[in-house]
Amino acid sequence: MNLIKTYKATPEPTLRRLPRYVHLLNKLRLDGLTEVSSTIIANEMNLDPTQVRKDIEYTGVTGKPKTGYNIEELIKGIKGFLSWNKINDAFIAGVGSLGTAMLGYTRFKEYGLNYVAAFDNDQMKIGTKVHNVPIFSIDKIPDLAKKMKIKIGVITVPAFAAQTVADHMIAGGIKAIWNFAPIQIKLPENVVLENAQLTQSLAVLTRRLFEID
Amino acid sequence: MNLIKTYKATPEPTLRRLPRYVHLLNKLRLDGLTEVSSTIIANEMNLDPTQVRKDIEYTGVTGKPKTGYNIEELIKGIKGFLSWNKINDAFIAGVGSLGTAMLGYTRFKEYGLNYVAAFDNDQMKIGTKVHNVPIFSIDKIPDLAKKMKIKIGVITVPAFAAQTVADHMIAGGIKAIWNFAPIQIKLPENVVLENAQLTQSLAVLTRRLFEID
Repeated sequence: MNLIKTYKATPEPTLRRLPRYVHLLNKLRLDGLTEVSSTIIANEMNLDPTQVRKDIEYTGVTGKPKTGYNIEELIKGIKGFLSWNKINDAFIAGVGSLGTAMLGYTRFKEYGLNYVAAFDNDQMKIGTKVHNVPIFSIDKIPDLAKKMKIKIGVITVPAFAAQTVADHMIAGGIKAIWNFAPIQIKLPENVVLENAQLTQSLAVLTRRLFEID
Repeated sequence: MNLIKTYKATPEPTLRRLPRYVHLLNKLRLDGLTEVSSTIIANEMNLDPTQVRKDIEYTGVTGKPKTGYNIEELIKGIKGFLSWNKINDAFIAGVGSLGTAMLGYTRFKEYGLNYVAAFDNDQMKIGTKVHNVPIFSIDKIPDLAKKMKIKIGVITVPAFAAQTVADHMIAGGIKAIWNFAPIQIKLPENVVLENAQLTQSLAVLTRRLFEID
């Protein structure tokens, strides 16, 4: 008998809210609370309690009728659901200002993201380390990714170099790409692409500012 | 007679796609093209041509039946719609690794974002400059924002300090806040809040990786 893993794709808005729950729960825990209701979470985050309960349902954590959720348990449940309870080794390509900031942003470690190698085409950078992570030449990506069985690649190179870097990552067996380059990357269907494009966020900000003005 | 400006709020997915059109159009222009059809844009971006035409309709730019859009005109139209065709002076609070990267990320200048002052509580940083932008004490935000008529504030401080910084910005008359701190900020209703929370993007990435595995 074959056991086939089937996961329903979690709605993206739910996935984007889950880290915000974690931030709030951490704060409540620091305040000395051990339990919290969906109503309190909803109030704090300006959401509907039904929405909160639905989101949390995806993670498999259940609350109790009167007291609500155990905070510790809920944090653990959400982090587990997001694969943040284990080390996710990752490559990062592009050690400019954004790449360097990403490497130095220690908060990501709390979420399991662990940069094991960085890549750049600048001969002055290759062979050195940034925030204790060694820098290699871009063309070393496929070989090293295969050898180290890396699944996550982060792209912080300029737009013109992004597709080449992505192709190298795919050739090395990388399965999920976090793209910070301001360009649409083309990937095979079985690879996850998440665009963290700051210009998209800026577009919402500047247009909304105009609309309220 | 009163003239009241009324703008329908543009759908957020449209706003998030517009910068991607600009990136593509810039690339096509470099390739030597002067005109482009909605079908070509749609193919390149893996969208439906109807969706592309709808998005562009918001900006007020119109295409011609056979040749499509003039590329130059379309770039100009989108940038104008997003207020990227003028200088948007901004404050940034928090000169850690992320704040420093944001100040050094010259691409934002292309989109009109112009950092005129940075703020931090670190006495060693106050009075110095980063990427040519002067650093002041956090409590100087309200006064300076009022004097300089700043409308945009960027928050790159740690979570625990974010609300205080936001309150200072509001007190100074800032109308749009771009928040990078991993916390939900509470703001008056007439202020625009755009959360550029990297952890939300990471959540989508790591969960999707698990779901395809």
